Amino acid sequence: MANKTRRSSYMTLADRDIKIIPLGGLEAIGMNITVIEYMDSMIVVDCGSSFPTEEMPGIDLVVPDVSYLVQNADKMKGFFITHGHEDHIGALPYVLKRINAPIYATRLTMAIIEDKLSSHDLLESVKRNVVTSGEVIHAGDITVEYIRANHSIADSCMLAISTPEGTILHTGDFKVDYTPIFGEPTDLQRLGELGKKGVLALLSDSTNALRPGFTPSERMVADTFNKTLADYKDSRIMVATFASNVARVQQLVNSAINAGRKVLIEGRSMVSVVEIAKDLGYLRIPDDVLIDVDMLDNYPDNQTLIIMTGSQGEAMAALSRVAAGKHPKIQIKSSDVIIFSSSPIPGNEKDINKVINDITRKGARIINKETHVSGHACQEELKLIYTLTRPKYAIPLHGEFRHREANAEIAQELGIPKKNIFLPDSGDVISVSENEAGITGGVDHGTMLVDGLGVGDVGSIVLRDRQTLAKDGIIVVAMTLSSAAKELLAGPDIVSRGFVYVRESEDLMEEAKAVAKDAVERVLNSEHVDWNRIKMEVRDQMSGYFWKQMKRNPVILPVIMEV
Amino acid sequence: MANKTRRSSYMTLADRDIKIIPLGGLEAIGMNITVIEYMDSMIVVDCGSSFPTEEMPGIDLVVPDVSYLVQNADKMKGFFITHGHEDHIGALPYVLKRINAPIYATRLTMAIIEDKLSSHDLLESVKRNVVTSGEVIHAGDITVEYIRANHSIADSCMLAISTPEGTILHTGDFKVDYTPIFGEPTDLQRLGELGKKGVLALLSDSTNALRPGFTPSERMVADTFNKTLADYKDSRIMVATFASNVARVQQLVNSAINAGRKVLIEGRSMVSVVEIAKDLGYLRIPDDVLIDVDMLDNYPDNQTLIIMTGSQGEAMAALSRVAAGKHPKIQIKSSDVIIFSSSPIPGNEKDINKVINDITRKGARIINKETHVSGHACQEELKLIYTLTRPKYAIPLHGEFRHREANAEIAQELGIPKKNIFLPDSGDVISVSENEAGITGGVDHGTMLVDGLGVGDVGSIVLRDRQTLAKDGIIVVAMTLSSAAKELLAGPDIVSRGFVYVRESEDLMEEAKAVAKDAVERVLNSEHVDWNRIKMEVRDQMSGYFWKQMKRNPVILPVIMEV
Repeated sequence: MANKTRRSSYMTLADRDIKIIPLGGLEAIGMNITVIEYMDSMIVVDCGSSFPTEEMPGIDLVVPDVSYLVQNADKMKGFFITHGHEDHIGALPYVLKRINAPIYATRLTMAIIEDKLSSHDLLESVKRNVVTSGEVIHAGDITVEYIRANHSIADSCMLAISTPEGTILHTGDFKVDYTPIFGEPTDLQRLGELGKKGVLALLSDSTNALRPGFTPSERMVADTFNKTLADYKDSRIMVATFASNVARVQQLVNSAINAGRKVLIEGRSMVSVVEIAKDLGYLRIPDDVLIDVDMLDNYPDNQTLIIMTGSQGEAMAALSRVAAGKHPKIQIKSSDVIIFSSSPIPGNEKDINKVINDITRKGARIINKETHVSGHACQEELKLIYTLTRPKYAIPLHGEFRHREANAEIAQELGIPKKNIFLPDSGDVISVSENEAGITGGVDHGTMLVDGLGVGDVGSIVLRDRQTLAKDGIIVVAMTLSSAAKELLAGPDIVSRGFVYVRESEDLMEEAKAVAKDAVERVLNSEHVDWNRIKMEVRDQMSGYFWKQMKRNPVILPVIMEV
Repeated sequence: MANKTRRSSYMTLADRDIKIIPLGGLEAIGMNITVIEYMDSMIVVDCGSSFPTEEMPGIDLVVPDVSYLVQNADKMKGFFITHGHEDHIGALPYVLKRINAPIYATRLTMAIIEDKLSSHDLLESVKRNVVTSGEVIHAGDITVEYIRANHSIADSCMLAISTPEGTILHTGDFKVDYTPIFGEPTDLQRLGELGKKGVLALLSDSTNALRPGFTPSERMVADTFNKTLADYKDSRIMVATFASNVARVQQLVNSAINAGRKVLIEGRSMVSVVEIAKDLGYLRIPDDVLIDVDMLDNYPDNQTLIIMTGSQGEAMAALSRVAAGKHPKIQIKSSDVIIFSSSPIPGNEKDINKVINDITRKGARIINKETHVSGHACQEELKLIYTLTRPKYAIPLHGEFRHREANAEIAQELGIPKKNIFLPDSGDVISVSENEAGITGGVDHGTMLVDGLGVGDVGSIVLRDRQTLAKDGIIVVAMTLSSAAKELLAGPDIVSRGFVYVRESEDLMEEAKAVAKDAVERVLNSEHVDWNRIKMEVRDQMSGYFWKQMKRNPVILPVIMEV
């Protein structure tokens, strides 16, 4: 699914311009990847995946088409990762198989990446560099400085990307949390300093640009947790949240310890992240607090807290299975209290409501007010960053068009002229220099669909077939013809899947068979007998028949065997 | 997809009990249908359809299985309809083909039903009775009184269903609007009077039972419309709303007239409802105000207002087509203002966001704050109705379990003992009398899926096939065998759909063919040759091969032709 964006006119590119080329992350939330080029050096910021849409049945993951990186492999200095969320790292294993280059990331981020690389057998072949915030990396003619930022996963950073032509600031995903659970607030001082020296372009997170005000501190949810544990001190408490939100887990653990409860971590990805974060010291849990699922029955309800995956209603995650009564070891009791420490990602509402109904039906109580804060900057935080950095050009990233447009409005409100604000499409080349900036070209870009072990072997034709198959099923019309005499030796036989329940539609199928036979014989008795004409005639006649009879459009697949 | 709910124990049913049997509307929003039986008389309140879920690809509509009505056709006195929304009338044409009975409904409701019956050629054969609020209909041993109610469609009613054993009040969908656009507020006086005489059971709308407070009056949105038309007096205004919300359309027309704008109605269902409502006098639009889409270009932007379908992002509706640039006659201009006079129905958020992105990308402005009010009662309104009617038993209807549970909590809060509150499943028989009430049995119930002209011919097996086909496609393995010698005459040939792009996977398909051939020959060379064993062996070997190679699970469909 490759594209090449072509605009009607382009500005002329100068040799010493910095080129900024987003290859994804602009049409929807997810798949963030941005190329920065200067002279003969090229770096890539983030390398994320996105989830398949409803139009992509059977697809596991969507990753960017990096043909442009492959074409420019000689310039490539490395992948510079801002943080460890899937939409920023999820495509790395797939992309690294096409273009191997060193990875730069902070400690927790790198540990999560390594977990991923290891399951793709890439640990041996990929060079990895752990960086700390404040560090500056030289990548050919480009330098990259990691700047501490707050987000819903620890160890997130912004990147100040400098060239002799000027500095680009890429915020990654961020918020401004004055009282973070881990580490320090976003490094506002360094942003101010950079702004004072001069920032050429600000590439910033648009996810919450439609929301007024400030995103509350992560610390806020602790009050709700403590209160809930106090209000329901006789109940078992379960909490569903995002697996990678280590600060959230830490707060839950703290509340549990205060209330004298043991903590059980449940759900594959949650267990994995907690293990990594514990090993690296990002998560502090005393040894006697964590319990195993098999020990759960040894403790009374009022001494346990279960932290689990499934806050988005994902069918296979822990909470969904518990709610549906399909978890082997945890059953909901009517005295349980379930906290949703998350907000619904658009599109997941129905699945989440199903889980809520399942839980309510079992008599348990649900708490979902003031149990979550976002990890992304709202409007006032964006204003703060624009004001600290005073960029000449603004390029809102990360979000659907409506989010990026809202970010652009904020930039304009703060005095950046409209002609200096860019809302590019993926593949656009935005060239910036001290004197001017504009879109100067378009490069190969697009998506690759991951389906099982296949990457890119499912494209638009296969997807269209899958959609059609899902809608009305398939009718296979098989027949054997003699190649010599051009006559029908067997069939046509009809087999269907996903069309009707055949045992209750025998007459229909018999009649359809007669229609197929007529079609075949008409061609065989004509002057120009060829297999393609037979197939076409069968397809036309059968389609017409089923549409007339049932107003349905199954895939008609004629199969001719030659003897 | 029929079910019979079976509980472990039932109360004993007495002869003179009133039986209340919901056949739908309890597991999800939609498909509302409730049977009320007393002695030898049976009536049905509403007969709605629901939309297919994601697990039902290709399905157009879901309607209730009414086998129980067919089994008791001799008792059946008629369908008593509360209002003209699809989730209360949508199944009528399908159900009437199985059990013909008279329909009772108010004027606008009946006109919408007749539009539906006419397209199913049922106008001749179905008896219809138009009723007005306040009217009492005798149906065997049961009487039904229509009571005026407010809702998001005009002419909505509650039903007081009386028997010698007592009175059941069924609220239909309702809110309490003290200043409605059409007619009078919900008839609170009559509810009070009924309550004073004694209401045995209250069956009430749970849709908004999770929301605190009062639903605002429909009149509230007029302020937003007038303000928007004043704020953007140079722009063309488009408004997307629900086709059947005649009061909303009336308010938009009023605002348009005040602002000196012509009104264009766009979208098939909107045009149809507006026509019906105009004919019946529910909608008052002066002749010179309405314009046709072909006249649109004759008027400057600031003199037009377009009211259209598509507020839920439905792909084929007017606004979605306009936003995507696919409407033949209306193109979005950057100066346009688009009002979403609706709130997202859970599950539609992604589609709506797509439309918003499409519109924003074209530079037009979106208004979606204070542009909509709900048609359903919030918590304080439910309290009002419970307090006026003081029912002995409460049976919350219309909603997912979490909504009905919230309604039940309100009932309990207002003093109805928990044992007198019922949260039944579809098919449960709730028997009520002055002395006691309880679940006394279960009846046939379930859903029928409508796909094209077929009703009920797509069941769980076909749906499962469709889901599997959508996920990984299908591989047809065709071969011709001689019936006499039991040897392979042609094939096996492999044809696939929705699996991989074959031209780029020739080696894989060649190898798969060899696997199939091996499997066939192994059985042919064995002692027990039979076609089923060949099919099974081909299926097993091919499944194993594709899972090993690609981690995919296509449907494997062996087809054997005999010569």
